[in-house]
Order: sequence, then structure tokens, then C-alpha cells
Amino acid sequence: MDALSFTNPRVQRLRRLAGRRSARHDEGVFVIEGAGLIAEAVNAGWSFEAQFVAVGAVEEHRVEGAGPVVVLGDGVLERVATTEAPQPVIAIARMRRPNIGEIGPMSFAVVAAGLADPGNLGTVLRSAEAAGAEAVLCGPGTVDWYSPKVVRASAGALFHVPVVGLADPTDLRGLGMEVIGTSSHDGGDYDAVDLTRPLAMVLGNEAHGVGESYPLDARVRIPHIGRSESLNVAMAAAVLCFEVARQRRHTTQTP
Amino acid sequence: MDALSFTNPRVQRLRRLAGRRSARHDEGVFVIEGAGLIAEAVNAGWSFEAQFVAVGAVEEHRVEGAGPVVVLGDGVLERVATTEAPQPVIAIARMRRPNIGEIGPMSFAVVAAGLADPGNLGTVLRSAEAAGAEAVLCGPGTVDWYSPKVVRASAGALFHVPVVGLADPTDLRGLGMEVIGTSSHDGGDYDAVDLTRPLAMVLGNEAHGVGESYPLDARVRIPHIGRSESLNVAMAAAVLCFEVARQRRHTTQTP
Repeated sequence: MDALSFTNPRVQRLRRLAGRRSARHDEGVFVIEGAGLIAEAVNAGWSFEAQFVAVGAVEEHRVEGAGPVVVLGDGVLERVATTEAPQPVIAIARMRRPNIGEIGPMSFAVVAAGLADPGNLGTVLRSAEAAGAEAVLCGPGTVDWYSPKVVRASAGALFHVPVVGLADPTDLRGLGMEVIGTSSHDGGDYDAVDLTRPLAMVLGNEAHGVGESYPLDARVRIPHIGRSESLNVAMAAAVLCFEVARQRRHTTQTP
Repeated sequence: MDALSFTNPRVQRLRRLAGRRSARHDEGVFVIEGAGLIAEAVNAGWSFEAQFVAVGAVEEHRVEGAGPVVVLGDGVLERVATTEAPQPVIAIARMRRPNIGEIGPMSFAVVAAGLADPGNLGTVLRSAEAAGAEAVLCGPGTVDWYSPKVVRASAGALFHVPVVGLADPTDLRGLGMEVIGTSSHDGGDYDAVDLTRPLAMVLGNEAHGVGESYPLDARVRIPHIGRSESLNVAMAAAVLCFEVARQRRHTTQTP
């Protein structure tokens, strides 16, 4: 097969998938850039459609298990990539779109209640996965978790924790979890609240916080010594997720 | 005074200050972009040399207390700014360069042991300030904390917590603080270690960790449930700084 040019339909499709949420979700596939992330997804059992590598670099950069190789002409990869320093391999992988019912009873879920910034959502996925959340539920208005920026910012966490679309926030009510919202200004101190029971931790939108449609049982805040509102949502998520893990570790160790 | 063009020496100096560490440190001044951050610095008592605003936008965008206004010609601000969406006002402020001796005895310091990424250092400054650290000490190899990217990422925290250059890491030894290094793989669990005594928390370089020249008394790690190494240094700093604050709050509340 000849190396594909930028105007080739397969290349144009790859570009659309990288750039447009609707293109991704219509087809149920998404784009992963870079051998490290692609290999992480392969190892986690994700399914691939194809991988794109520049002509002359195929043997060096193709990733075992990431689908058949499509060879791109000189300079094509650079025009498709979403990063300033393009990765030498880009793959198309198949989405997983679990329903909330498929996850089963959860002990700890993180809810992204309209997080708009891809870097924040990616970082939240990292914290959730590292701290042992069983799923991340994304409410209305949340940035597409299959966008290249979120995939990148999640540093592979996206491949290890189920991410579920939550079309209706009131669905949180029937999951057998306490629904706890985070707040920058009111609620109990996060470390004075029992976080060892089944728990959905709701993180609000960067500008507007947690919307009124979320059926919160309680709110928690992180007390600051410095100025108020000095943590962003990604930092707050790290602190909160690891407090959940900390309390549960101690509960287990000293029953 | 006429609006300055891009080639005007004052504009060229502003551009150098935004772009070059050596230019900033030779002159002892730095650049703050955006009315919000500039006002934050004004309120925290920082001293200003001048502020630069586009012609026709002076009344709207000048910041009270941020020095005399220099008017820039059309399109000049855009060429000086370090952001893709330029702020309508850029100011030159005077550095504070405290010595370690000026800070006095500390109960909690955060040490950036060669953090290379400006976003990470800025976020570490936010966590340190929010959790009540009395200073952030920056060891050799740490990115310039007066660079526009760090100023921005710190979201104003830089103006509220003293940041001190630590030319020789062994100087940590004489400060009366326990020196605790963070590690992704060894050391005691961070929440099982007493963090209530005077403490310097050392955060290592993104790739290489804490260098051997740091006189560590102990190491702590954050236990992960997910994959190892899944937190970056900025997230780890948030978790660790707030664990320090948490332990101290509880020590105070239940003596």
C-alpha cells in the first residue's frame, strides 16, 4: 500500500475523529496519540481499528496489538496530530460506552458534574483511578472524555477506570451510594465526614460548581489556610479522592 | 505620550522580560499578565514599575496601584504577550528575593527539588499556599518561579507565599525542620508518618525524583490502588500538603 496523502479520505476521517466529538461518537471510535498511551490501552485490553505511522518509521514506531498499520506520507502526521510536537504514531481505538447498570454496585464513584476543561477532567480521571474509584460518571456539559486532550491528560487512567455518561443527574439517587457534593465554601470539613460508606463524590463545573439537578445528600469542603478558592477542581479532586482511600485503608487496618 | 510601537526599546525590554530568565533576574523585575493577577499582586503589597495597556483601552483596563500606564499601539500587546489569548494589560513588578535567613523559623516548608515544568511548579505553589506552608524553597534546576507561565499557573499564590532560592540543598539541614522526601515507590505511607512537627516536604524532579544532594531524614509515599506512578508531582503535592494541614488541624483540635 502506498503512503497516504493528507487529502486521502482515511486521513481526513482520522482528522475529523481527532477534532470533533460528534464524529467520534457517531462512529464509536476515538484517537490515541503516542506509543506510550497506545501501548497502555493495548495492555488494558482495548480494541483497535488501525494505527497510522509515517512512511519510513513503521518498524520503529508501530505498536504491537494496536491494529493494522496505515502508512502516512511525509508531513501528513504533523497535520493530523493535535499536539505541537506530534507523536510518531496515532491509533484509532474503539470506545467503551458502559451503561451505569453494567458497572454493578459501587463503593466509590467520582462524578464529573459538567467539568469543562479537558486537562481538569483528565487529571480527575488520574486521581479517581489511583485512589481506587470504581467508575467516573460524567454528567451533562462535561467535556468529551474521548477527546485527544482528555486522553492525554488522563495519562492512561481512562483505559483503567470505566467512564460512564450520566445523562440525568437524578439517576445518582438509585445507586445505593451517598451523594456528596464538593464546595469551595460550605459543607462539612472533608476529613470530618465519614467517607467509608458507598459514596459518589460530585465535582462541580469550574465556574458554576455543582448544578441544582444533582441530588446531593451532603456537601464537603476543603478548609484552606491560604486565600479562599485557591484550589482548582483537579487539585481538590486529588485531595478528596485520597482522603476517601485514606479513611478506607485505616478502617480496614483497624476494624 | 504617544502609543509605543513594537520596536520601541521599552516594548522590546518588556518582551525580553517576558521571555528570558536572565533578563528578569539581571533587572530584578518580572511580568504579570492580566488584570486579575495584577490586582492580586497589588493587594498583596507587591511593588510595580509600570503597566502596559493598548491604546483606547486604558481607562477600561488599567489597574489601580500597578504603576504608571504605558500606552501601546494597536497589535503590540498581542506580540508581547506569552499567551494565545493575550490579556489587555501587562505589568512589570519588582521581584522579592528573600533569603532563607529572612523567613525565620518555619513549621512547614515545601521544597521544589528541581521541578522543571512551570505548570507543576505553579500548582505546587497553590497547594503550598492553600495548605499553609510558610515558604516554598526552590532547589537547583527548578524552573524560574518568576516566569510568566509559573506566575499564571500559580493563580496568585506566588504573591502570597515567600519563594526562596535554595542554591545548596544541604542548607536544608540547619533549618530545624525534619526533611522528608517524597517518593513514588518507597518510604512510609504518607498518612502513617507524623507530619505535625516542623517539616520540609521535598518534591522531586518530574523525571528523576529527589536528587542525592538533598539531606533527607525520611521518605514518604502515597499508596495507590490503581497503577503505580499514576500521580504526577503536582497532584502528589496537593495530597501531601493537605495531609500536613489535616494532621495539624486534628492535633490542634484534639490535643
